[in-house]
Amino acid sequence: MLYAARRWRGAAMSHCGTLYLVPAPLDFGCNTQTPLTASMPQATLQLAATIEHWVCENAKSTRAYLKRIAELYPLSAPLQTMQLQELPREVHKKGDHQGGFDARPLLQAALQGHNVGLVSEAGMPAVADPGSSVVRAAHELGITVVPLVGPVSLLLGLAASGLNGQSFAFVGYVPVANDERAKKIRELELLALKTGQTQILIETPYRNSALLQTLLQTLQPNTRLATASGLTLPQGSCHSALVKHWKTKGWVLDNANPTVFMLGA
Amino acid sequence: MLYAARRWRGAAMSHCGTLYLVPAPLDFGCNTQTPLTASMPQATLQLAATIEHWVCENAKSTRAYLKRIAELYPLSAPLQTMQLQELPREVHKKGDHQGGFDARPLLQAALQGHNVGLVSEAGMPAVADPGSSVVRAAHELGITVVPLVGPVSLLLGLAASGLNGQSFAFVGYVPVANDERAKKIRELELLALKTGQTQILIETPYRNSALLQTLLQTLQPNTRLATASGLTLPQGSCHSALVKHWKTKGWVLDNANPTVFMLGA
Repeated sequence: MLYAARRWRGAAMSHCGTLYLVPAPLDFGCNTQTPLTASMPQATLQLAATIEHWVCENAKSTRAYLKRIAELYPLSAPLQTMQLQELPREVHKKGDHQGGFDARPLLQAALQGHNVGLVSEAGMPAVADPGSSVVRAAHELGITVVPLVGPVSLLLGLAASGLNGQSFAFVGYVPVANDERAKKIRELELLALKTGQTQILIETPYRNSALLQTLLQTLQPNTRLATASGLTLPQGSCHSALVKHWKTKGWVLDNANPTVFMLGA
Repeated sequence: MLYAARRWRGAAMSHCGTLYLVPAPLDFGCNTQTPLTASMPQATLQLAATIEHWVCENAKSTRAYLKRIAELYPLSAPLQTMQLQELPREVHKKGDHQGGFDARPLLQAALQGHNVGLVSEAGMPAVADPGSSVVRAAHELGITVVPLVGPVSLLLGLAASGLNGQSFAFVGYVPVANDERAKKIRELELLALKTGQTQILIETPYRNSALLQTLLQTLQPNTRLATASGLTLPQGSCHSALVKHWKTKGWVLDNANPTVFMLGA
């Protein structure tokens, strides 16, 4: 029996399957792929290979991920016979916390005793990604929830930033319109400088350079700005400096690499 | 050549070594140990086995960790000849962001071309743990910083909470004194309900039950409270429910297991 499959006390006390939160590698949509062993523990991959029922952000990318896992560990069932249920578009768009989406019907298989995997396109499901409605539904139904270890870009980026890791906030995306964007950045900077709380934001990759320009134009010279691009990938890079020093560094952000932006004292 | 050792563009452009942020398993101080393969990717362990210069929270626990790695991958040098530098007590106590600690002298080996590992007692260094001063120093010295994948309890807990993962803050410890503690918890709840930002806190394990009691007594009935205890360990468990439902569940927190507490809408 797999180590990870029996490791949570709750699992033995219920006739339900377990909801496993299965992280995905961070190379989704990137030009290069890394070996899964670079960023995924063996136990995560071995356990994922045993799951035949999935709730996912996108069925196509989940199949692609399962094919990569199958190269290392044989899947317990053919891909064609697996149950892959996509989260509806409304959850992608509005997020799990708006609109009152009821995810309980997605967990029928777990109620029938099967383990279910929750997976997003990159990183940890339900963190800066859809999925929390499924996790809430599992808790409501008395289904044991087990998060598996894998890459989480936000915290890899934070660790590599040199910014305060004892107090931090993830704020998601900043507005796209110039005026609102600059206003929001100034608010976040004020909060960071006043409270010491590092502010973490993300952007759609093709807007990386534009966001960086706005940050450098908007932030005060002595504020620290850090970026972490292409985490776990061959082309990855982490930069961190006071804003006044950034201007002399000549660092460039590739608009193809997912990037985490962080600012603080 | 190891995949992970050559994967970051910066590393090839400098005569310096690289500063690797090496996560540690989450079983530090726990009654049970898990196999490293349960929570650490192969690339992280293989790379850690090649590092001969370390900056650490505690030399004794770093040696114990390296011995566990050596059971899977031979270390490139005998443990006795490795350089293990501890972060000074002032950094442990006050944190890296107070007192103006200059960590540059700890990175001499990197300036001489050696790779250096930064490691804390559990999880990701510099996140809810000492180390950010060393990362800042590396950026100042032009040393490439590469975070390696491993377990991060805060985000494993957040994913398993079913709370909002699109907006969240880690606030560390709440005050110990009763009045201040309740006041702080009410402030965090107000913020969470007003803004939708999940609030994540931690406690010294032996005070888990006491903090849980205070949370249940202080929070409003319709606030969601989640706990994640003993993450990645056999005795691990994740609970999430509205406060009014917690009272009927009979869930108990073991004061021996590191626990992440989360609250929100």
